[in-house]
Amino acid sequence: MKAIILILLLAATATASVKAEDGYRLWLRYDPLPQTSALLSSRQQITTFFIQGQSPTLAVLSRELSTGLSGLLNKEITITPAAATADIVISKSNNERLGTEGFSIITSTTGRRQIRISANTDVGLLYGAFHFLRLLQTGHPTSNLNITSKPGIRHRILNHWDNLDRYVERGYAGISIFNWHTLPGYIDKRYIDYARANASVGINGTVLTNVNANAYILTPDYLLKVKALADAFRPYGLKVYLTARFSAPMEMGGLKTADPLDADVKAWWNNKAKEIYQLIPDFGGFLVKANSEGQPGPQDYQRTHADGANMLADAVAPYNGIIMWRAFVYSHETPEDRFKQAYNEFKPLDGQFRKNVMVQVKNGPIDFQPREPFSPLFGAMPQTPVLMEFQLTQEYLGQGTHLAYEAPLFKEVLDADTYAKGKGSTVAKVINGSLYDHPLTGIAGVANIGNDINWCSHPFAQANWYALGRLAWNTALSSETIAEEWIKQTWSNNSKVVAVCKQMMLDSRETLVNYMTPLGLHHIMGNGHHYGPLPWGKSLPRADWNPVYYHRADKAGIGFNRTATGSNALAQYTPEAALLWRDSTTCDEKFLLWFHHISWQRPMHSGRSLWEELCYKYNEGVRGVKTMQQQWSSLQQYIDTERFSQVQQLLTIQYNDAVWWRDACLSYFSDISGLAIPAGYERPAQTLDHYKSLQFPYAPGNGK
Amino acid sequence: MKAIILILLLAATATASVKAEDGYRLWLRYDPLPQTSALLSSRQQITTFFIQGQSPTLAVLSRELSTGLSGLLNKEITITPAAATADIVISKSNNERLGTEGFSIITSTTGRRQIRISANTDVGLLYGAFHFLRLLQTGHPTSNLNITSKPGIRHRILNHWDNLDRYVERGYAGISIFNWHTLPGYIDKRYIDYARANASVGINGTVLTNVNANAYILTPDYLLKVKALADAFRPYGLKVYLTARFSAPMEMGGLKTADPLDADVKAWWNNKAKEIYQLIPDFGGFLVKANSEGQPGPQDYQRTHADGANMLADAVAPYNGIIMWRAFVYSHETPEDRFKQAYNEFKPLDGQFRKNVMVQVKNGPIDFQPREPFSPLFGAMPQTPVLMEFQLTQEYLGQGTHLAYEAPLFKEVLDADTYAKGKGSTVAKVINGSLYDHPLTGIAGVANIGNDINWCSHPFAQANWYALGRLAWNTALSSETIAEEWIKQTWSNNSKVVAVCKQMMLDSRETLVNYMTPLGLHHIMGNGHHYGPLPWGKSLPRADWNPVYYHRADKAGIGFNRTATGSNALAQYTPEAALLWRDSTTCDEKFLLWFHHISWQRPMHSGRSLWEELCYKYNEGVRGVKTMQQQWSSLQQYIDTERFSQVQQLLTIQYNDAVWWRDACLSYFSDISGLAIPAGYERPAQTLDHYKSLQFPYAPGNGK
Repeated sequence: MKAIILILLLAATATASVKAEDGYRLWLRYDPLPQTSALLSSRQQITTFFIQGQSPTLAVLSRELSTGLSGLLNKEITITPAAATADIVISKSNNERLGTEGFSIITSTTGRRQIRISANTDVGLLYGAFHFLRLLQTGHPTSNLNITSKPGIRHRILNHWDNLDRYVERGYAGISIFNWHTLPGYIDKRYIDYARANASVGINGTVLTNVNANAYILTPDYLLKVKALADAFRPYGLKVYLTARFSAPMEMGGLKTADPLDADVKAWWNNKAKEIYQLIPDFGGFLVKANSEGQPGPQDYQRTHADGANMLADAVAPYNGIIMWRAFVYSHETPEDRFKQAYNEFKPLDGQFRKNVMVQVKNGPIDFQPREPFSPLFGAMPQTPVLMEFQLTQEYLGQGTHLAYEAPLFKEVLDADTYAKGKGSTVAKVINGSLYDHPLTGIAGVANIGNDINWCSHPFAQANWYALGRLAWNTALSSETIAEEWIKQTWSNNSKVVAVCKQMMLDSRETLVNYMTPLGLHHIMGNGHHYGPLPWGKSLPRADWNPVYYHRADKAGIGFNRTATGSNALAQYTPEAALLWRDSTTCDEKFLLWFHHISWQRPMHSGRSLWEELCYKYNEGVRGVKTMQQQWSSLQQYIDTERFSQVQQLLTIQYNDAVWWRDACLSYFSDISGLAIPAGYERPAQTLDHYKSLQFPYAPGNGK
Repeated sequence: MKAIILILLLAATATASVKAEDGYRLWLRYDPLPQTSALLSSRQQITTFFIQGQSPTLAVLSRELSTGLSGLLNKEITITPAAATADIVISKSNNERLGTEGFSIITSTTGRRQIRISANTDVGLLYGAFHFLRLLQTGHPTSNLNITSKPGIRHRILNHWDNLDRYVERGYAGISIFNWHTLPGYIDKRYIDYARANASVGINGTVLTNVNANAYILTPDYLLKVKALADAFRPYGLKVYLTARFSAPMEMGGLKTADPLDADVKAWWNNKAKEIYQLIPDFGGFLVKANSEGQPGPQDYQRTHADGANMLADAVAPYNGIIMWRAFVYSHETPEDRFKQAYNEFKPLDGQFRKNVMVQVKNGPIDFQPREPFSPLFGAMPQTPVLMEFQLTQEYLGQGTHLAYEAPLFKEVLDADTYAKGKGSTVAKVINGSLYDHPLTGIAGVANIGNDINWCSHPFAQANWYALGRLAWNTALSSETIAEEWIKQTWSNNSKVVAVCKQMMLDSRETLVNYMTPLGLHHIMGNGHHYGPLPWGKSLPRADWNPVYYHRADKAGIGFNRTATGSNALAQYTPEAALLWRDSTTCDEKFLLWFHHISWQRPMHSGRSLWEELCYKYNEGVRGVKTMQQQWSSLQQYIDTERFSQVQQLLTIQYNDAVWWRDACLSYFSDISGLAIPAGYERPAQTLDHYKSLQFPYAPGNGK
């Protein structure tokens, strides 16, 4: 009898495998769990669940739990109307500690053994249910749960740089999942699965449109499309936001000005906000990129960023909307070190913003480089809620083809100490509002999502979406924990798979830094598309768009002097924070060339000269990719053929790219310094002229 | 025991259903068949198969048969090394009747009962295996097979209008599946499934790039990418072709001219062909759009299309390559009826082309309208192989959201009689070479494929890809047969599903003609994107780009006089063919306004005036969509939730679009004619000005 069952189960598995593992299901796969003791206990324990009340959110919760549990436990799990006899009880609590989104999961052993998921709100219950499914999927015993969890940050948001024609700026995973042309009539199943995935990691907001904004989204026809998405997302606790093109009153409203102090302009935005909120009562608000890289803004009218933000803030305030105003600005006119410009612009405005404005700051002072020091604006605006902008899409991190787990990058920034209120004033505390006691808090991730079947192009890129959500919920989670959770849900609970994948992921970012921009190099990638190395680049019309502006390599040395004898960007940090970097002999070598121009001959901590250390690091990067290839190969027997092959092919591309980065950069720096690559290191396969000759006119993501 | 088995099977099904039915698998789903008697017999009969020999093609055949049979029969099917004891025997034959691609499938009853699939070539065996799987999937008994089949047309080709940045011109299903940026390093599983799907319907060639061509595809780096695709496709019998930009010798080669008679130009192409064939020995050849809509061509140097085609033909001839030279040309200078221009240009060149040139002619004289008379070039070039170009992508047939089964359109053209060699000289006979005894034959379909999960956007659009392949194999297949085959493989073998879907599909094209362009109207769609109605359009710089050029409606009547008193395009047909349309009183009313300017008051065969007939037909179109909605709704219980909902939503969009087409067109024609819409017909919901005001700046497919 047992043999027959086994044969039948195997046959079913064989048949099921006709459907390939295509990555569409993300970390919500719900395939039957392996038969561990924890699982067997849960399987025995759980057959029914009860949900108190009714609402669209509870309906999706019920569906998720039923599908998820039936899949994971490989038996039919049903909803029951009787709380007393249910194995899982989902019910509303009145527990101040849980706030509006938190939940508790408790295994009750008084009376009937039950798992009780409680929250003050429906969406809290949904988050609790997803967390419970995560516990199961990651092999956590459910027999003795006592969990209380609530988000540390209020607005946990994706930023889509998606255009209305579905082109995604810096998108490497196909085109936008938002098909504006077929909205509002066609609600793609993908919209629902997108909302599910976000809810499962606690992401509660999404900005649907590109920061390089198009006013057309504000036309009545398009607002109906936005409403259709908002309606689809609402049960999942996911609010929609839009980008506001500052000149919309002129382009769409026919006004002669977009001056934020002009009465007609104010009225136009007030009416537009009213129109939006009539359609979408819980509309989140606007994200704005103004007076930056050609976008219109208040400075076109000699007004400040605060004037602009406040005008929009007043328009959405009656409806509890918020404005996220980006600090990513740098001037066409000012020859000032680009590093310093956001701070110079925004620091003086501290205290001038309305209560419903957040200033959205990229993690570093330049632009999402593989490694940046934290932006000096963190901690520098005590009276202003500052929202963190991370970039999930790997614009500078190998784009669609490199494995680069970003949680270590996020954590490096969040854990950095601003010393703004003395030691322990971490960026995380600025962001979560605790340092300056701001109730309005936020983290945004520039989405890495497209219409590729597996959403993110690289199977491992899904982990960055996942990590953003989990860290936004709890900045204290470690990169290791997040990786482990994600691997177990996405790949396998097998201990070897978990161990190997985790090591690959944790090492991947440093490996990438090594083969791209070691020792504090930054912004030496290709023009426009930002694909591949271009350290010799100096052809663009603005100095601060060119690689040579950033590395400043010459016969004598390399690096950007940002000390008091240079641009003095370091002065934007608190003295204690600056201390880490101020002295080139004690400066953390990971950041060295961010702040110092250093002689090629300078001895490093390793004993090697700077030049040889550079050669060493680039080779370390290449070696790191080779190691990842070997690690991945060791997992072949544990991974489905399709995804195994995908990652294997991508790692080969990554290896070849790493070699290219190393050889192109070292060829160029060797040429500049007059120093030969030391014996023992591999020679570049091609001449410097060859690397310089490469052109990629159809590399993706490069705007239009 | 039986009860236990049933429960286990049900549980497995429930679990499997976690994976949604997303349409990715096309008509190759291989889910377990329903338990009919035919199936039970096959199931009993088949456990093993034998394949004689080894090759990459036989390896994919083996995998397909093993996956397909195991899935369909829901039991493990294995390959065996012993032909004598195998239930299916795949082996090479030496049977002249089968040619290089044909196959036979015979159930042998002498000795051991075996199904024997034979062919002269490996690819013939692959086609045979796919056909056998099709027989099983469509519920055909396999106990008594005696089938011989070979293709009626040699080159069965998809044309991708895909750009190197993955934008697809006239693409409504996402972006190109060909990700040039990650080639050659990354071979997407999709490439393999694309090749499988094509092989399953006998498509043996694919032109990877847009006819509005980019010379960059001919650079060495890109040719390596093309080679990677060619290598992936080769086992499936699928050859790759490229579009040749005529000016490539200047743009890529630095020459001063692209004159086809210039020795350096010839040498450049000869070398380029040599370079390509060194990488891809079975490269198919070039497709060329020259001197048309801004593309460069031989006329830039006062040479003929034959001069241009022959120069390229000579370059690929040593390697058995072919040139497909498009006849889709119309002049900027000539004020001649656009209908006539392709004929005028190409007819005089008959006899001047090399043996390895085919002239590729769109099915109708204008441009893939919902209904066109066949192009007068068919039958008019006895000395030249003429290749049929159909358009699968629904540029003028509702784009990504309308259900329009195109086989009836294809058949209408193929069955049309050119009378070129007397009665019975059908277009099909021109195309399949039998009329003029040409060995070089071809059919091309402009692909409707993109990176949408389900490939073609509309679930029913997959049927058009399928139909192209099946008709190219055998032009005698009926629309009904093809629809039935496709439905059974894609949706269900359930007789109600088959009957209802078939009726929907067979009626869909006439319904679309009715709500868009009844009675021979044509080319009255939106500018540029071609989305929606624009019968009032007259703003474009060229007369023959504007809708008013084509319908010529005025106070007195409507239609384009192409008789001897008008443009006399009819004279391009043989007198017998022209007879069908020459006299406005006997002209088939489906084509009436293609050839005649008719008084609004003219009584039609129905007894209604032309004006009322127009109103009647537009309303018939709307009613037809309503009927499709009802038909589809009746299938809810038989169709998976996901695809049911998709089609349901799309039919709602189609219904609203049909109403829009009707109301916009009738409002406009009413305004022009001064005639009111007769009582009993629904009134337009909006004013004519409203319809005229609609703008769709982000409608897809509109070039860049």
